[in-house]
Amino acid sequence: AIIVYRLPWTWKCSKLLMKFIHAGLNTIAMILAIVSMVAVFEYHNARSIPNMYSLHSWIGLTAVIFYSVQLVLGFAVFLLPFAPIPLRAAIMPIHVYSGLLIFVTVIASALMGITEKLLFSLKNPAYSESPSEAIFVNCLGLLIVIFGALILWMASRPHWKRPPEENAKVLRPNGGAPEGMEAESTMTDCSNADRSDVGFNSEAARKRNLKLDEAGQRSTM
Amino acid sequence: AIIVYRLPWTWKCSKLLMKFIHAGLNTIAMILAIVSMVAVFEYHNARSIPNMYSLHSWIGLTAVIFYSVQLVLGFAVFLLPFAPIPLRAAIMPIHVYSGLLIFVTVIASALMGITEKLLFSLKNPAYSESPSEAIFVNCLGLLIVIFGALILWMASRPHWKRPPEENAKVLRPNGGAPEGMEAESTMTDCSNADRSDVGFNSEAARKRNLKLDEAGQRSTM
Repeated sequence: AIIVYRLPWTWKCSKLLMKFIHAGLNTIAMILAIVSMVAVFEYHNARSIPNMYSLHSWIGLTAVIFYSVQLVLGFAVFLLPFAPIPLRAAIMPIHVYSGLLIFVTVIASALMGITEKLLFSLKNPAYSESPSEAIFVNCLGLLIVIFGALILWMASRPHWKRPPEENAKVLRPNGGAPEGMEAESTMTDCSNADRSDVGFNSEAARKRNLKLDEAGQRSTM
Repeated sequence: AIIVYRLPWTWKCSKLLMKFIHAGLNTIAMILAIVSMVAVFEYHNARSIPNMYSLHSWIGLTAVIFYSVQLVLGFAVFLLPFAPIPLRAAIMPIHVYSGLLIFVTVIASALMGITEKLLFSLKNPAYSESPSEAIFVNCLGLLIVIFGALILWMASRPHWKRPPEENAKVLRPNGGAPEGMEAESTMTDCSNADRSDVGFNSEAARKRNLKLDEAGQRSTM
């Protein structure tokens, strides 16, 4: 979900479709996270293991809570058509930073969970005797770190960013437009939401739209 | 060390001094890391605990190895006066990315180490019974995460970047300059290292210097 806006094949999609892919993948991940949380609590309760005592659980639950806040806020601000552009522009850097921070925190939490599980489950031979299972799971942990590093690399390269959109569509000389286009534009970049008070086709308006688009939609870490 | 270039009080320092602070703090951290690694291995050997079996140790040692490579490369490329500007410009984004990635990896490794230690050391009452010691150390772990989040925020804000330097000093009309300034300039941004083939005081040269400075010295995640 993080790198949807970094994949060249998605650049051909409309911005609305990219947003739907981004939001959809994150919603699926959120549902899976909730299912796994319920599974953990039920497993603990069934075996009379205390809940929420470990650092892994504290950090993991914090990450899931922030993730759900991020999802709801992202939906309300960037997908629904109500938020004004300055608000979107102000929240976008925080949205990007929070997303990457939650991603890193989830990886850290997963590594702590793996460590716990290996210590709990490997008894004969123990984890410290490095049975092949321990080596295998350690390699899995390293792969998770490498995966995280690759995603962060892709997300943070300026030249991997989606190129600026053609603004011709946005700056239509007449106010009337096909209904579908209008809806999409309003729900996505909102660049023409306040077009009544700017001169159509003027250079200033073009620059202003580009700048807003830059600040509100394309800013990244 | 990461946020030296983000602190307003250091903006008054020369770039060379900023680099020395950055390199010096990282060197101190590297020495402390080596001391702690030796302590761990000696502790394990003294107690006949196997070395390097856990995911914590794998990721921790990997991070320390990458950290030492980062330190040596950073010293060779950015502090010594031999590397040409295009090389510095090409390596700077990798240097910044690697530094932040190593920072995050070290935090993850610390959290795994804390988890291991709590599981090993708390026996009666056990970690799962949440004695006050467990709560205390869990809070320490959360504080480490908050600390990491703050550093990443400071490091990734574009407007927290060091403002561009005055280029008047760099584009002196005569080749001769006080020895100290010459040495500093060569060892730091090297903007005037190849000044023989650009027109002094020309707009093109100013822009070129700014661009190289931007690419080579100020790029960030």
